[in-house]
Amino acid sequence: MARGLLMVFTGNGKGKTTAALGMAMRAAGHGLKVCFIQFIKGGWRYGELDAVKRFEGLIDFHVMGQGFTWKSDNIEEDARLAREGWDFARAAIASGSYHTVVLDEFTYLLHYNMLPLEPCLDILTGRPAGQHVVVTGRHAPERLLELADLVTEMRAVKHPLADGIKAQPGIEF
Amino acid sequence: MARGLLMVFTGNGKGKTTAALGMAMRAAGHGLKVCFIQFIKGGWRYGELDAVKRFEGLIDFHVMGQGFTWKSDNIEEDARLAREGWDFARAAIASGSYHTVVLDEFTYLLHYNMLPLEPCLDILTGRPAGQHVVVTGRHAPERLLELADLVTEMRAVKHPLADGIKAQPGIEF
Repeated sequence: MARGLLMVFTGNGKGKTTAALGMAMRAAGHGLKVCFIQFIKGGWRYGELDAVKRFEGLIDFHVMGQGFTWKSDNIEEDARLAREGWDFARAAIASGSYHTVVLDEFTYLLHYNMLPLEPCLDILTGRPAGQHVVVTGRHAPERLLELADLVTEMRAVKHPLADGIKAQPGIEF
Repeated sequence: MARGLLMVFTGNGKGKTTAALGMAMRAAGHGLKVCFIQFIKGGWRYGELDAVKRFEGLIDFHVMGQGFTWKSDNIEEDARLAREGWDFARAAIASGSYHTVVLDEFTYLLHYNMLPLEPCLDILTGRPAGQHVVVTGRHAPERLLELADLVTEMRAVKHPLADGIKAQPGIEF
């Protein structure tokens, strides 16, 4: 029984985005198509951006909400960008072209109420049969966890940024 | 201050190996060299094996202990394979050729006492300056966690194998 799974990587520890990247890599290694959508705060992460170029035709990589500031002064602009990103993501899901769709750091859009929760969850649970969706980010809403088939909490037992060591290329981005 | 980190992904949840793969991908995306060594039980995992071929010259991928049975009847043979794998890994670390060395599922060799713990930890902590080492696997020894700079526990909140859904290509391997 192979069925599409809704997977969530959440928690405050390191490894959520990289685990999603690793899954994309595995799927692509099997010749399966992946749509990887990042809902990031701030700039591009060149590490993954350059790496996925090696999987042309297998991993479609998109960055949404470039310049997202989240809890910014301009809440309307944030909400507009969130809707735009989500429209793109739901079209990717609905296309049925992908073995796996990754919504990286998507939880923030739900957590900060930039998108209405239940309609979003309806899209995720109503995805094409056999399609996997991976959602990453802190503060995953409880309802999302309830509906997910797989949930891993990446729990920060020790984190070097807490020790005053700065973020490094190839590690943090 | 950029210094090499000792990172551990442990816990019983999904995402340890994939997070290490994602980190390898990020580093390679920055043009940094990675040595990825898997200490696996049983067969090859073709997903990652095929994917890393796209990073030739950047990700060196090795599978050690092919046929490892762990707690098998033939404990001496297991210990011999463990030492062989570890000798290879420590040579990779000592070479200083790598930005990051990944010891995937290495914790089992320590947990099952197939290698002497303290001499292994001495090698890890005495690695070339600036080099990152990532260790993954369940049952990471407490001493390893103490010495690590970064520890994430991948905690299984929900796991589909527990619900009787079988492992799928591109997801579990």
